[in-house]
Amino acid sequence: MTTIDRTSPLPLRYQLRQILLEKIETGEWKPNELIPSEQELQKMFGISRITVRQALSDLVHEGLLLRERGRGTFVAPPKMTHSPQARDTLTEYMLARGIRPGWRVIERYYTEATKEVAAQLNLITDSLVYCIRRLRLADDEPIGHHVAFLPEVFAAKINEDALLEGGSLNYISHLPQVQHSRALRTVEAVAASDIDAQLLHIPPGSPILMIQRTIFAPGGEPIEFLQARYRGDRFKYQIST
Amino acid sequence: MTTIDRTSPLPLRYQLRQILLEKIETGEWKPNELIPSEQELQKMFGISRITVRQALSDLVHEGLLLRERGRGTFVAPPKMTHSPQARDTLTEYMLARGIRPGWRVIERYYTEATKEVAAQLNLITDSLVYCIRRLRLADDEPIGHHVAFLPEVFAAKINEDALLEGGSLNYISHLPQVQHSRALRTVEAVAASDIDAQLLHIPPGSPILMIQRTIFAPGGEPIEFLQARYRGDRFKYQIST
Repeated sequence: MTTIDRTSPLPLRYQLRQILLEKIETGEWKPNELIPSEQELQKMFGISRITVRQALSDLVHEGLLLRERGRGTFVAPPKMTHSPQARDTLTEYMLARGIRPGWRVIERYYTEATKEVAAQLNLITDSLVYCIRRLRLADDEPIGHHVAFLPEVFAAKINEDALLEGGSLNYISHLPQVQHSRALRTVEAVAASDIDAQLLHIPPGSPILMIQRTIFAPGGEPIEFLQARYRGDRFKYQIST
Repeated sequence: MTTIDRTSPLPLRYQLRQILLEKIETGEWKPNELIPSEQELQKMFGISRITVRQALSDLVHEGLLLRERGRGTFVAPPKMTHSPQARDTLTEYMLARGIRPGWRVIERYYTEATKEVAAQLNLITDSLVYCIRRLRLADDEPIGHHVAFLPEVFAAKINEDALLEGGSLNYISHLPQVQHSRALRTVEAVAASDIDAQLLHIPPGSPILMIQRTIFAPGGEPIEFLQARYRGDRFKYQIST
């Protein structure tokens, strides 16, 4: 489909979405490229402004276009894909595509475990845990926010040099318990809080892919509980079964 | 923590969030229960209205509270959890919890495969495919929207009686290729489009957990490509590795 077909039973909005989608998929419109304005699209396809707006809005909501106030509408870069089952980390994904991976440590401190953290780490409420808050960077731009909690016994063994590079478990990946660990994850879609918005440079309410992960030693002992919040427009998960 | 500690370095907003979180986690506040008003919380904890609003807003964004205009703020029911690796389906999850599962078929038709659908199903663009659009229901309320595409050869074998009950593959689960199939899924957070909003009874822009799944026969032949969009506040995924 390359033009609007007025004899088709398909709604114009849907037809236009398909035409624009093909321009993205075939690479006629490239990632990060500015696309024609609403007015230009209206003329190109001979349809109403409202239909153009609806089709663009559908593609923005699907994460395929990005609207930047005052600048126009752009083709979104493809979402980074991470498979929790694969051996290669998101860091390796980035390196393979010429994206510079990195971390920024926001803060690190001992604190008393909340009920939630204690339950995840199989500790008594108010036990001392170590908290590490980091931003995950792609080409120096924050794409995710990690808050990790570790029982004292593992916190003492952290590799300090590794906090700024490598995969998400880099700072404890030298531990034999981690090398043979299992992980349980939940994946949810939530709205960006004010804090997410500030840390990840997105409007409050934007879609966030939230991952909670607990790492268990081979004997079943919890090693780390992580709450990670990623920009929904930059990141997706892949799972094969 | 049960009261605000003004000597603590923790921001009041965060302290209040923790106190309210514990009321939810301990069951002092039960799912679907109306919680005290902003004004009542302001008095209970002797803090400003803006801090109360911020803490409530954080918990709403995290999906733990639901705000209903004109009615107040409620404790959210726990999100339904589905593990794509487990043998039990979301339908079985619901049945085990006394939730009535079901489907509503919106439409079914033969159509020409778009570039995207053709690529997923390993077909030539414009090949004829069968499209089934269904709403997934929990106690008659729509929680997700499925759009499935099948090559003609499998569409001819659909079990018509199974479209309204059972797991998401119910209508083709009798086929030997499906019984031994593998699946590849991507999971993303996106914003609800106008269509999502209408179908799922949520405001446009609400978080949606979007799952795209392709089912492959043991020989590698694609059987079905599915785009599923679930309410982010009702559904999450669980993955163990």
